Amino acid sequence: MITSVELWFEFASTYSYPAAMRIEALAAASGVRVEWKPFLLGPIFASQGWSTSPFNVYPVKGKYMWRDLERICARQGLPLVKQTTFPRNGLAAARVTLALDEADRAGFVRDVYRASFGEDRDISSPDVLGEILGSRGLDGGAVLARAQSPEVKEQLRAQTAQAQALGIFGAPTVVVGGELFWGNDRLEDALDWAVHGPSRLTARTE
Amino acid sequence: MITSVELWFEFASTYSYPAAMRIEALAAASGVRVEWKPFLLGPIFASQGWSTSPFNVYPVKGKYMWRDLERICARQGLPLVKQTTFPRNGLAAARVTLALDEADRAGFVRDVYRASFGEDRDISSPDVLGEILGSRGLDGGAVLARAQSPEVKEQLRAQTAQAQALGIFGAPTVVVGGELFWGNDRLEDALDWAVHGPSRLTARTE
Repeated sequence: MITSVELWFEFASTYSYPAAMRIEALAAASGVRVEWKPFLLGPIFASQGWSTSPFNVYPVKGKYMWRDLERICARQGLPLVKQTTFPRNGLAAARVTLALDEADRAGFVRDVYRASFGEDRDISSPDVLGEILGSRGLDGGAVLARAQSPEVKEQLRAQTAQAQALGIFGAPTVVVGGELFWGNDRLEDALDWAVHGPSRLTARTE
Repeated sequence: MITSVELWFEFASTYSYPAAMRIEALAAASGVRVEWKPFLLGPIFASQGWSTSPFNVYPVKGKYMWRDLERICARQGLPLVKQTTFPRNGLAAARVTLALDEADRAGFVRDVYRASFGEDRDISSPDVLGEILGSRGLDGGAVLARAQSPEVKEQLRAQTAQAQALGIFGAPTVVVGGELFWGNDRLEDALDWAVHGPSRLTARTE
């Protein structure tokens, strides 16, 4: 039994939205804790030769993704509006996440995702982030200042490098004791792995 | 209620393997019929600038895919060996599928997938395909000859063009009354859509 899983997410990532909204309830039902790990996909995509989201690079796939996300959000009861800018730059929100105490992260992350994908707000704007922090009873000015500190900037750079070193190439990715599960549609598998471990791999009968 | 779904598959496609092995049992449980639609990903990938599988173009993603497939096959009790050649050329097997009576297709397709991914056999070889046909009580020589006819060749070309026109960009894809579901991990959603239709899209509460 592994008691803690890491959710590696990027605020610009579409499928990270439903994943961030549902992982804690799933994890709690399995008796597992979630560590929130923001990182940036930009440098990872750049190393694959992409200067924007692959859903923009490959528009046929992008068209499918938006329809698929619409179905998923409908099922989860999540608001979804087509963003006027895609992808939204997640750098500022990722730094703010790291500037927060761990206990404050999950709720902030969910509010930012909802603002971005459910309300088409510009989550790269300090005003928007400050308003979200304030609505959660946090000191927006102080947190935004801390998010600009060299320590937090370096922490996000290091976390992005760590994601790449782990073999992460997209978001969301759940890491469970070194095992990677990519995609909102793998959350259940990841938590099953945390509880049962690789027993599923020895179930092969042929 | 939609009583028939189309499974669009490519013999080279890794995730088409577990999908082909499990879709009929799932569909039968939903009272739905499966139409087997072979097509070629090569021309579609070429239009995206790829000359091979994206899992070769992006090796970090490829490494993840093989591990993910290993987990999936273990859970389904399916044999999986690392292929000495990837991707295996699926052209000949796709033509043979179209040369068969509809009733003979599902079993042949499953045997080819098992030979390719479970036994690392060269499914582009007429000998291998002939052996599979024979083991199923079919006249290998006659079917292989029909698979080389201009009619069958044209049918596969047309089917690949139709896949592209439908917005298909990967395999497996299940098409349900015009709605696309991409990936082995969307089979359940596709069948749910066949039975319940877009009612899931109106479930949005916010």
